[in-house]
Amino acid sequence: MSDTPDRLDLKEPYERLEEDPPNPIVTALGLSSDDELHIRLDALHPADFSDYLEEMTDAQREELIARAPGLITGELLAELEDDVVEDVLPLLEPGAIADALTELDSDDVTQIIEEMDEAQREDVLEAMEPLERAGVEASLKFDDETIGRLMQREFVSAPEFWTVGNTIDHMRDAGEELPELFFNIYIVNPRLQPVGYVPVSKLMRARRDATLASLMEEKLFTIAQDLDQEEAAYLFEKYHLISAPVVDMQGRIVGMMTVDDILDIIQDENKEDILALAGVSEAGITDTAYETVRSRAPWLLVNLVTAILASFVIARFDYAIEQIVALAVLMPIVASMGGNAGTQALTVAVRALAERDLTRGTALRTIRREAIAAVIIGLMFAVAMAGISFVWFRDIELAGVAFIAMIINHFFAGLAGILIPLGLKRAGADPAVSSSVFVTTVTDVVGFAAFLGVAAYVLL
Amino acid sequence: MSDTPDRLDLKEPYERLEEDPPNPIVTALGLSSDDELHIRLDALHPADFSDYLEEMTDAQREELIARAPGLITGELLAELEDDVVEDVLPLLEPGAIADALTELDSDDVTQIIEEMDEAQREDVLEAMEPLERAGVEASLKFDDETIGRLMQREFVSAPEFWTVGNTIDHMRDAGEELPELFFNIYIVNPRLQPVGYVPVSKLMRARRDATLASLMEEKLFTIAQDLDQEEAAYLFEKYHLISAPVVDMQGRIVGMMTVDDILDIIQDENKEDILALAGVSEAGITDTAYETVRSRAPWLLVNLVTAILASFVIARFDYAIEQIVALAVLMPIVASMGGNAGTQALTVAVRALAERDLTRGTALRTIRREAIAAVIIGLMFAVAMAGISFVWFRDIELAGVAFIAMIINHFFAGLAGILIPLGLKRAGADPAVSSSVFVTTVTDVVGFAAFLGVAAYVLL
Repeated sequence: MSDTPDRLDLKEPYERLEEDPPNPIVTALGLSSDDELHIRLDALHPADFSDYLEEMTDAQREELIARAPGLITGELLAELEDDVVEDVLPLLEPGAIADALTELDSDDVTQIIEEMDEAQREDVLEAMEPLERAGVEASLKFDDETIGRLMQREFVSAPEFWTVGNTIDHMRDAGEELPELFFNIYIVNPRLQPVGYVPVSKLMRARRDATLASLMEEKLFTIAQDLDQEEAAYLFEKYHLISAPVVDMQGRIVGMMTVDDILDIIQDENKEDILALAGVSEAGITDTAYETVRSRAPWLLVNLVTAILASFVIARFDYAIEQIVALAVLMPIVASMGGNAGTQALTVAVRALAERDLTRGTALRTIRREAIAAVIIGLMFAVAMAGISFVWFRDIELAGVAFIAMIINHFFAGLAGILIPLGLKRAGADPAVSSSVFVTTVTDVVGFAAFLGVAAYVLL
Repeated sequence: MSDTPDRLDLKEPYERLEEDPPNPIVTALGLSSDDELHIRLDALHPADFSDYLEEMTDAQREELIARAPGLITGELLAELEDDVVEDVLPLLEPGAIADALTELDSDDVTQIIEEMDEAQREDVLEAMEPLERAGVEASLKFDDETIGRLMQREFVSAPEFWTVGNTIDHMRDAGEELPELFFNIYIVNPRLQPVGYVPVSKLMRARRDATLASLMEEKLFTIAQDLDQEEAAYLFEKYHLISAPVVDMQGRIVGMMTVDDILDIIQDENKEDILALAGVSEAGITDTAYETVRSRAPWLLVNLVTAILASFVIARFDYAIEQIVALAVLMPIVASMGGNAGTQALTVAVRALAERDLTRGTALRTIRREAIAAVIIGLMFAVAMAGISFVWFRDIELAGVAFIAMIINHFFAGLAGILIPLGLKRAGADPAVSSSVFVTTVTDVVGFAAFLGVAAYVLL
């Protein structure tokens, strides 16, 4: 063995963006020998392999799989984006898929089988070991995004009267049934309910004759199998968990969740929130233009309706605009500033709700803070707006109108930005999904109404 | 020990929002005896304790610390938000802080010491063990958000010729110096460079006389100590790492990062992105109104400038509005639709860049997809807009103008939404921070110009 480790260059992913090296899989497809193709690509890390595969065209993927089907390992399937898995699976034999899946922990197997169509799913399940198959079928009974669906069914548990020696011997014997990696041994009572845990790093340092009971940590967080993934992620994050046992209705251990899977959940939830705030229902880099339209059109339609609402307000004051066209010039500034200020307040609130920093205990204080901040910001920009209006149109009354409208709109923007997400949350809706449209409706309507209304009253 | 575990109710955090139970720390402050106060609160999990402490007023925190200073443990300090740590630290004695910190791993210690003012930092460092102090001082030399600052300096390493038995005996002896938790043993060469690792769960299952060399996994990811935290988080996520050794310029191991710390980094980075997209520089739930204004005003100022730019466009066509006031009524709809469509495309692009799904390899395909989607969406809403305009104003020419303007603005919105973040990324800027303002400027200016320009040409 050499002294220099087989280390990967950590800067590589960024550089890929900058320098655009050729896709090594596509390059390898140029080889005439299928065996050489296989050997060349076999050394790629599954995580990199999947990235390159995702960049390829359907035809290239088909060629690769036809020429070297053995490259499509279970680990690779587990790494691929769902929609690419969906494309790749029909190209493989059910038997080959079942073989590829045996190397994986049950959570990964379930995730891949989810992407199959009904017929293929049956064929693959048919080709699997009965025990493995039963586990997958049990997982599929749970809703998407619940822990029952996501957990792995392999875990290590032991009764508390066992010694360290018993436990280690048991693990040496168990072999294949154990999870690929584990960090805690769960201590169970005779009814198989977890009552504590021993970290592996602690077990290893203990004497062989020590009992698990003497090493056990009793502050154990268990996760119900019907729990939503977001709840579980919150627990892991808040309490810095590395793994947690999953229990059924009777409190019996049925599986475990580990922090590396939680990482994926957190990224998914964050992505959902950030896209929802922008009015996109779902998005992947491999989406077609049609899927892109479908994920964005609904919210644009809602926006069209609210924009028309704002236009009704303008139409209500068309006689004022007819007389003073400067109103039409300045009114979008008032609306735009309010919209942005409202979106700022809203985003902070949505993020605080997601992190559960914004509880009823802190809500009142936060509302007060937003109101004060809105008044200060409103005053600052009202002065700026009045100055601009005066310099532009040399009309002190118009400047005064702009000043007043700006303060009014900022105040409503700040309040809408905090109250709307809080209200939606209390009503049981997801504040990330629906808040934006409400907030910008308020700021548009109030912005136009305040500016044109005050103008009509003062100037005409 | 009882059979029923000391399990926490997992639904609790949500219910806290719904039912608003009293803050148990505030309730306990009502106790007249300081000892009782201490006992009552000692059982709280540090993660919960910190949440309740964050909700309290300064006066309540001061009372708590004055009456039961022993409750402020190192673990609690490590859990608290930075700005609350900053408030709490001045209330504690340097010696007491140094004591509290000894129970922590070095990464947590550094994080707390960062929040101290110069004078207190010196006093606390003075009161610490020399070795611990040296570690903290070394960490503080690294930039904020680099791995050198964030890593823990405790790790387990062994030469490859050691047997499992040697390793376990060594760990039993080492005691305090070892990290609180660890998942991998890093195998180092004589120059202390990591060359592989053995997962603890694998070591434990091996025979005592097996050598580490025979168990070692050679695909090791090492992290440079000057690496940015975001890069490290990306590696952990992509390659599903549980822990990774941190190395100095000579490739020698100096510390480690574990996935639970990466979880915090990922949440921070996500928060930064989501707030940046909304034009908020930083935000915490404990912010004052003044801090809120400071974090939001800069981007609002930029928005004011771009809104004025859009108004110049309107002013350029004021003669058209004077003649056809319906233009003023309809023009915000065109601008608003474009702004929203652009923000959708932008958010998808920023998210894909953050996840590194959007590389140069996929960029061209993504740009083409956005352009096609923009044309389709533009056509759909152009039809709707034309219909609305016709029904409202009974003017077929006006409807035609709205139709054309809508298509033009959607097309530019889609392109701006993808090209602006890509361009900023290539220029080395953070696309999340600066994209929004560019995109909405484009959609406002193009929206007003297209609608009013075409109207002036066709209708006058």
